[in-house]
Amino acid sequence: MSRNNRPRPARAAAATGPDVRTSVTVAPVERVVQPAPVRPTPIGRIPVVDVSPTLEQGRWPAKAAVGEAVPVRATVFREGHDAVAATAVLVAPDGTVRSTARMVDVAPGLDRLEARVAPDAPGAWTFRVEGWSDPYGTWAHDAAVKIAAGVDVELMLTEGVRLLGRVLAEVPLAPADATIVERVRASLADTRSTPQERLAAALSDEVRDVLVDRSPLRDHVSPSADYPLYVSRELALAGAWYEMFPRSEGAVQDPVTGAWRSGTLRTAAERLPGIAAMGFDVVYLTPVHPIGRTFRKGRNNSLEALPGDPGSPYAIGSADGGHDAIHPDLGTFDDFDAFVARARDLGMEVALDLALQCSPDHPWVTEHPEWFTTRADGSIAYAENPPKKYQDIYPLNFDLDPEGIEAEIERVVRLWISHGVTAFRVDNPHTKPLDFWERLLTSVRTTNPEVVFLAEAFTRPAMMLTLARIGFQQSYTYFTWRTTRDEITSYLAEVSGEVGSVMRPSFWPTTHDILTPQMQHGGEEIFAIRAVLAATGSPTWGVYSGYEHAERVARPGAEEQIDNEKYEYKPRDWAAPEAARLTALLARLNEIRRAHPALRQLRNLTVHGTTNDQVVAFSSHLDGAFTPDGRPDTVLTVVSLDPWGPQESMVDLDLVALGLAPADDDEPRFNAHDLLTDETYAWGRRAFVRLEPGRPAHVIEVKHA
Amino acid sequence: MSRNNRPRPARAAAATGPDVRTSVTVAPVERVVQPAPVRPTPIGRIPVVDVSPTLEQGRWPAKAAVGEAVPVRATVFREGHDAVAATAVLVAPDGTVRSTARMVDVAPGLDRLEARVAPDAPGAWTFRVEGWSDPYGTWAHDAAVKIAAGVDVELMLTEGVRLLGRVLAEVPLAPADATIVERVRASLADTRSTPQERLAAALSDEVRDVLVDRSPLRDHVSPSADYPLYVSRELALAGAWYEMFPRSEGAVQDPVTGAWRSGTLRTAAERLPGIAAMGFDVVYLTPVHPIGRTFRKGRNNSLEALPGDPGSPYAIGSADGGHDAIHPDLGTFDDFDAFVARARDLGMEVALDLALQCSPDHPWVTEHPEWFTTRADGSIAYAENPPKKYQDIYPLNFDLDPEGIEAEIERVVRLWISHGVTAFRVDNPHTKPLDFWERLLTSVRTTNPEVVFLAEAFTRPAMMLTLARIGFQQSYTYFTWRTTRDEITSYLAEVSGEVGSVMRPSFWPTTHDILTPQMQHGGEEIFAIRAVLAATGSPTWGVYSGYEHAERVARPGAEEQIDNEKYEYKPRDWAAPEAARLTALLARLNEIRRAHPALRQLRNLTVHGTTNDQVVAFSSHLDGAFTPDGRPDTVLTVVSLDPWGPQESMVDLDLVALGLAPADDDEPRFNAHDLLTDETYAWGRRAFVRLEPGRPAHVIEVKHA
Repeated sequence: MSRNNRPRPARAAAATGPDVRTSVTVAPVERVVQPAPVRPTPIGRIPVVDVSPTLEQGRWPAKAAVGEAVPVRATVFREGHDAVAATAVLVAPDGTVRSTARMVDVAPGLDRLEARVAPDAPGAWTFRVEGWSDPYGTWAHDAAVKIAAGVDVELMLTEGVRLLGRVLAEVPLAPADATIVERVRASLADTRSTPQERLAAALSDEVRDVLVDRSPLRDHVSPSADYPLYVSRELALAGAWYEMFPRSEGAVQDPVTGAWRSGTLRTAAERLPGIAAMGFDVVYLTPVHPIGRTFRKGRNNSLEALPGDPGSPYAIGSADGGHDAIHPDLGTFDDFDAFVARARDLGMEVALDLALQCSPDHPWVTEHPEWFTTRADGSIAYAENPPKKYQDIYPLNFDLDPEGIEAEIERVVRLWISHGVTAFRVDNPHTKPLDFWERLLTSVRTTNPEVVFLAEAFTRPAMMLTLARIGFQQSYTYFTWRTTRDEITSYLAEVSGEVGSVMRPSFWPTTHDILTPQMQHGGEEIFAIRAVLAATGSPTWGVYSGYEHAERVARPGAEEQIDNEKYEYKPRDWAAPEAARLTALLARLNEIRRAHPALRQLRNLTVHGTTNDQVVAFSSHLDGAFTPDGRPDTVLTVVSLDPWGPQESMVDLDLVALGLAPADDDEPRFNAHDLLTDETYAWGRRAFVRLEPGRPAHVIEVKHA
Repeated sequence: MSRNNRPRPARAAAATGPDVRTSVTVAPVERVVQPAPVRPTPIGRIPVVDVSPTLEQGRWPAKAAVGEAVPVRATVFREGHDAVAATAVLVAPDGTVRSTARMVDVAPGLDRLEARVAPDAPGAWTFRVEGWSDPYGTWAHDAAVKIAAGVDVELMLTEGVRLLGRVLAEVPLAPADATIVERVRASLADTRSTPQERLAAALSDEVRDVLVDRSPLRDHVSPSADYPLYVSRELALAGAWYEMFPRSEGAVQDPVTGAWRSGTLRTAAERLPGIAAMGFDVVYLTPVHPIGRTFRKGRNNSLEALPGDPGSPYAIGSADGGHDAIHPDLGTFDDFDAFVARARDLGMEVALDLALQCSPDHPWVTEHPEWFTTRADGSIAYAENPPKKYQDIYPLNFDLDPEGIEAEIERVVRLWISHGVTAFRVDNPHTKPLDFWERLLTSVRTTNPEVVFLAEAFTRPAMMLTLARIGFQQSYTYFTWRTTRDEITSYLAEVSGEVGSVMRPSFWPTTHDILTPQMQHGGEEIFAIRAVLAATGSPTWGVYSGYEHAERVARPGAEEQIDNEKYEYKPRDWAAPEAARLTALLARLNEIRRAHPALRQLRNLTVHGTTNDQVVAFSSHLDGAFTPDGRPDTVLTVVSLDPWGPQESMVDLDLVALGLAPADDDEPRFNAHDLLTDETYAWGRRAFVRLEPGRPAHVIEVKHA
């Protein structure tokens, strides 16, 4: 906990402050949410309980993406010993049943059943689980046992004939299936055959395909409630993000005077082909708005800015405008539109930072003083975390005029959407009221369901999870601080588990705010290692520009870059030889992600055992029912965590999780094709690996026979 | 799992069969439960999520008993750094707020808050959690930090004055409290004092008692939904049960002919003073109804009954009547009424077995053939678990005439209630539909909330839990099969944890159906050990008659008594010397339970560490706010699991869980008064114990200073 709960030292001290701590002003507006009454629902004839994924029984919708194989689970059982079964039913926004899937037991003894269903369009879907009594299953079991024991032989066969008569009368069968059932019923009734022959006909695979899989006879069908499942487009779940400060790209320093000329949106756009060549899906821009002058921070977060220091783009607002304006140094809305258009031409989208804080020079401060806390001495409260002061930031006080503030922020968001922004990286959402976010995101989603909001909340679990519950499509995570094998594997299992239907993770090895000790000290190699982990461990991942160069010098005493780009221009030489290896690796990782749909899903990850705690192994598997080409897709990542030397390990592979048959020996069972090196190995349930600097990872395509 | 999932060998093979496995008959009646719609509720200004105890967000009520200290929990947090707090609100059935309690953080970093509330009457209560912003907490923190740092000193003091002005204007204070706040506001404003003095006045315990505990100023109060909490009388949670076969008590065998004369309800009543003297609360009678003759089972579950064999009381129904009749050998309803009256005079209640199965001779078979499954050959289906047959039992088929069967069973239940039965031990509830039980229990509860239904379901967890969800007040448990230290302690933690608001455990060392290998082979000593574990580990426990004699010879190949009382008369000599020790122990354990309210609560148990895996330690603690005399009550049990020899162990005591202050050394901290031996020890956080056959346990009253 301590690692994640600590305040974010650099950013907090820079431009992003906590909200102000002065609460003596009475909030004039109280909007108490009147919770809906609880819903008593009696048990059904066949009990169906603990349906998943649900958030407080439908208080909020669970999340899915188009094409995502959503695991629907429920505890379904019945009295006595008769056969019980369950069906997952997926219902499209228009109310029609889109697909059904018979559920299978995934926790023997616990009556926990699961099926996967995949919505095929965005919108407000629902799903339910139907428990039912399975008369064919009951009869098949009893008849097999009793006829083998010579008990009630003719009686059981006769009851089988009656059962198939019910099937023909009650189940709408396809004509071919009806023919099968008719024929089997005749065989069952044919006393010229032996009882064993008659029984065998009724238990054949042919019949089971009809009565178990395609068209079962279902008695006492008992539905659960219809639970909401909000389906977004694929980018909400899967994508590769690239962060940049647009002013750095094309910034030029006068060699004589040392004065800088800012990069512009036009010069920044020249970088887009390079980003696209690395296979990224989203270009995320730090704030592009005018920057305040009052209490502007200088280089390395110094309290006094020197002339020419551009200031932090997170200190938003000046005489040139606020959140609805573009910094004059960067250009105009036309330039912004051109940037977005160029990105789109290259197959990318543009995400914008949404940092809801104001410099003292923000137009809102004079136009809407009622949005800010006034202290007892008449001054406007700046941000502070006593005794620290952040005088360059005035936080909005959402309680003073919620409707006014919310309307204005929604106007700002919609303005940028109208200029082609399709995603927002939301800065510190956990310092603003959650009910505000829920109303804003709900409203935007109604008209613009394509827009993705990524929550940048590095804080305690309850807040992070609840931001996801109320509508953020994606969340930054603790990935950055998970560095040991056990930390990494348990975190991968966690984010891809039940919580994966609520909080979609975004894995970032670094950000402009975060440079962990591991990244500071592990050389270029650790940048390669963490890129492999992020790109294959989470369907959404991202890097901050300069990752190509393994930029890793920290400001002393801080876990962020020295000479942080937040306070100065930082043009980079993309063609520099030292950027070549990581540039190529990022490109290859994104190429692999595009080729392998299993890597673009979340709830399909399995951790595999390793005998060396410096080696991590995990895989993602997608059944052929959910892939574009109908073939199963399986990718297995094996990574060394040691940037300094070779590591050897045995990997204990869960073959079933790889989509293979279980094995009881160590003989080779599949071809392991390394997508990074193009080498292929013959691997079984125990594989040996040797990894070393220069080639710290296998990213294995499991070749199914 | 395997242990608990196995079929119950003896009983199942005897008189209780699984329901019949023939499902080809179409159920003519379908009553599909239409689930209530899910309830979208937006987040509140102060988020309150994951409220507990709730069952699927109020699909069913959580359970509590009168006087039970119910732990109400919720995850409550807020944006930014201002202070947040929460209140648990308990609402009586008439809608009035009965009590409120400020919640405290029980999982630092996870924002999980808890308070205990105790309903004081039976009925349909509700509770909610209110999250709120705490302006006094925010100001007190900030003022302390800033004034110490010399920042904004006068400003913070002025804001404090304003804050206390708000308190006086907005909070309905008791006059004495208002006086305190007035005085402190004056001190805060008094510039003749130092800032430190002025601040100290506003942070004094006196003020905190008002503004933190009694009458806080609460901003942005954000309520959760109102969740149902069904409150039963204390016996639903806590009681000591004693099981007997009434026909055995007073049964006499003719020494010449060997023929038996059955005991009667009148002779059985003569045993009641002895049971009362051992301190039991409930006398539970196995079925008292006429017993079938067709396919009657003989001694030791033999297929052929000999003349004079009385048959199993679980094969219910004969020409003499069914579930609404009394076996002529036992007597009449007048005799039954007299039995109940005698028990009541002795301070006990009477529980009756409710075993919903019919012998072929049951009147329902001829009067309501439509309640039984007819097979293809026209015969009535008997119970079977293919290829096994239980021809002495016809199971009811609830799907054929649910209304008719349910009305009749409710009539039977109400008949016995009218004769003074206040509890039912329900035989094999998991072989009947759960929707039937829910309707029956709901209906009975409406008119007779005092009646307790104990579910005898030894089966898989989902079924056992769901029987509790739908209304069974108590449940038999896996206690009987938990024998090692780790099994016992993890099970104690489980049943007293979250699930304790759903499923109330009843611990039985043996029953007439169950004699585990441990009990067969551990001698009298193991009977003492398991009695201590059951009586102090669960608020409800029970024994089967003959426990006094440590009856422990099993029928070969079975885990039940040889010469099982189910099939024969078994009179016992209660004054026999070999019964003296356990008779006295049972009496003492029940005496201790009556004297110590902590032992009659469930969700207050803590497991303590031991250095010897043959020694178990756990305690129950009840805060003085919830005890009759207002003093905290704490009982600590330390038991050896070894019936053969001495065992020594250190016990690592969680002093806080015992209601004591934490300690950082091993010095004695409290007097440990052994309620079994009347010895007293001086114990600290590490205690040494030596236990041995003859005195295998300490039951320690923790003497609070």
